[in-house]
Amino acid sequence: MRQVYLDNHSGTQIDERVYNEMLPYLKGNYGNAQSLHSFGAKAKDALEKARQQVSDLISCKEEEIYFTSCGSESNNLAIKGVAQAKASKGKHIVVSEIEHFSVLHSARRLGQVGFEITYLPVDKYGFVSPEDLRKALRPDTILVSIQHANPEIGTIQPIEEFSKVVHERGIPFHVDAVGSAGIIPIDVSKLGVDLMTFSGSQFYGPKGAAALYIRKGVKLIPQIDGGIQENGLRAGTENIPAIVGFGKACEIAKSEMEKNYQQLIRLRNRLISELPAKIEYIYLNGHPEKRLPNNVNFSVEFVEGEGMLLLLDEKGIYVTSGSACTSKALKMSHVLSAIKVDAAIAQGSVLMTLSKYNTDEDVDYVLSEFPPIVEKLRAMSPLYAYFKKTGKRQVAGPGTDYEHRHERADENN
Amino acid sequence: MRQVYLDNHSGTQIDERVYNEMLPYLKGNYGNAQSLHSFGAKAKDALEKARQQVSDLISCKEEEIYFTSCGSESNNLAIKGVAQAKASKGKHIVVSEIEHFSVLHSARRLGQVGFEITYLPVDKYGFVSPEDLRKALRPDTILVSIQHANPEIGTIQPIEEFSKVVHERGIPFHVDAVGSAGIIPIDVSKLGVDLMTFSGSQFYGPKGAAALYIRKGVKLIPQIDGGIQENGLRAGTENIPAIVGFGKACEIAKSEMEKNYQQLIRLRNRLISELPAKIEYIYLNGHPEKRLPNNVNFSVEFVEGEGMLLLLDEKGIYVTSGSACTSKALKMSHVLSAIKVDAAIAQGSVLMTLSKYNTDEDVDYVLSEFPPIVEKLRAMSPLYAYFKKTGKRQVAGPGTDYEHRHERADENN
Repeated sequence: MRQVYLDNHSGTQIDERVYNEMLPYLKGNYGNAQSLHSFGAKAKDALEKARQQVSDLISCKEEEIYFTSCGSESNNLAIKGVAQAKASKGKHIVVSEIEHFSVLHSARRLGQVGFEITYLPVDKYGFVSPEDLRKALRPDTILVSIQHANPEIGTIQPIEEFSKVVHERGIPFHVDAVGSAGIIPIDVSKLGVDLMTFSGSQFYGPKGAAALYIRKGVKLIPQIDGGIQENGLRAGTENIPAIVGFGKACEIAKSEMEKNYQQLIRLRNRLISELPAKIEYIYLNGHPEKRLPNNVNFSVEFVEGEGMLLLLDEKGIYVTSGSACTSKALKMSHVLSAIKVDAAIAQGSVLMTLSKYNTDEDVDYVLSEFPPIVEKLRAMSPLYAYFKKTGKRQVAGPGTDYEHRHERADENN
Repeated sequence: MRQVYLDNHSGTQIDERVYNEMLPYLKGNYGNAQSLHSFGAKAKDALEKARQQVSDLISCKEEEIYFTSCGSESNNLAIKGVAQAKASKGKHIVVSEIEHFSVLHSARRLGQVGFEITYLPVDKYGFVSPEDLRKALRPDTILVSIQHANPEIGTIQPIEEFSKVVHERGIPFHVDAVGSAGIIPIDVSKLGVDLMTFSGSQFYGPKGAAALYIRKGVKLIPQIDGGIQENGLRAGTENIPAIVGFGKACEIAKSEMEKNYQQLIRLRNRLISELPAKIEYIYLNGHPEKRLPNNVNFSVEFVEGEGMLLLLDEKGIYVTSGSACTSKALKMSHVLSAIKVDAAIAQGSVLMTLSKYNTDEDVDYVLSEFPPIVEKLRAMSPLYAYFKKTGKRQVAGPGTDYEHRHERADENN
């Protein structure tokens, strides 16, 4: 049976070249980059080569790259690190409603120790408004954090517009680029950001290495104290094999970005245009164009995410959903909630994230296997039976906004 | 040329079996343990199998193991996490002077935000006194952290005695066992600890995975906020390949501990007894018996660490030193300082940490190559020339305590 992995926002398959680059450091070159002997020097050289490769990807200086263990750690370091460093100047922080939990919960944690958090709303596509941002800024605002692209609905924010607004006020601006780095071009100077999180595991690198870009001059308090690694900002023996892999992944991502981008966007657009032709009552989440090239997110009415996941899984198709039942936290996706997808329809959301390893045959397979699954599930649905019989939808939970949804469905189809 | 790696406290060579166990998760099984599809379930199974293996090593329950990225992260989580959770009950913390920097600097960080830290002194062998500990405890003491064994001088603390004292007062007791876990037997119930840090990279596991044991009922504030991984205590996608390797390393360490212990202690004792027979004016740091089986730490008088490292390196022998010149922080080892090794003699300290891969031939090689290197360096030393001519030592820096050192040298030789 064909296996079609469409859960790449949860981590990608490692690139063979990345893997091969890592193995010698996993096995033979096990030196510690802080050791002064020549065995340690090899590790140090590998570390600095990787830093060069990683900085190249986002066009920053090498010394502005700080390695961490994962994107969540980078986001915690950025949010808490800046907040703690600037607490004497103010305690107000601005984030968007659709940030990753590692940003939102870092902010919430700070909220428990005297900081005040403003959560910027988003429109139906997931866009933050520059005007809302401007209004949210206060004299005691010490940090703004808005993600580059939302990994769940794919929406790419106009970061340059935000950075102008934020920098007019001299406030540090953090951008979580976990969903976008390595997938679409990023130049931190052009974006105008002061701190940026990204992780190699999102673009064919290994788990265990991520980075925080910190523009020279921006001050942070370390969150993992100890040794002098990473210029004193992140203690702990450097995970050389993972960092080497991260570096290689950045190098490959940069050199092959255009090619991968074209392939991803073609496959994405096939799914976005062809699935609604085969499945009725299916609505795209996020903006149709201003979205990540690898992101497809539909709400499928009259079915539940869990059932879709299960039946797709049986066909070797691996996806995720923003439904409450398929979340280990048992909550509906906060992103779908923020863009005001009604709870009933969000139950049927399906997120497909492509990788460079996906092919047209994969898309063909999904287009052939997915529609009968939806049909099968709808045949079991009393809501669907009621709708078919009466032409009316039963009332959904709070926040229901069918008109809005149908309007969007029309726009997208 | 023979290569003799004696810097194993900076990280060990990976066990071939650990490596082989990891590769499938690095390459093919790249699923996310939080994904609900069957591809994710494989990752989840691997995660929980590893948790079982890791808990077995220290005889705790699986659900008491929390995975982190490194020992430093575990120590930060333990110290800051408990302090923040218990801040309303008190703000006094007790640690020893010879803790790892990830403990000391976490404590110092807390000291900057209103906590008070008591640093317990150690005796000439590096032992904390249970009586000093008892005296340090106050009604507002909320945490005690003392390491199991010091990775630099090898001294193994009487943890059971400390845990009695600490628990009489109902205070949580954290133990940093990075130097000892996987090398000597540990049963957390027998030791009587509430939190314990350990890392697989110290016993033939990969970098990128470590653990914090947290006894059921002990409350902590997460330091990396975000998703619900690790029961909500450590966000971030689990580094499955590294965790799988860590699990395997624990399994192997447990089943082969006795064999490895005997080998290590035999090689260690050869170095400890035979080096002073070949090199004059050389003094063992740490206790001659109550020390880690893999730890050899000598101060070599009239030479400097840097020169020894360099010349040993040329012979393929990789060691470290506690001298200021060989520290990237340019400070003399705080451990040697705490056991009151005088600054001049600490300059000539050499730390050799063995692994299970070291052999008698390695020891023979060190015994043949090291003495001529010391001789060569001493031939260049004006201090040595003065001593040879006058029989007197020139005055060293502050804290000089030659009598104490020579008394110890006598004891050890």
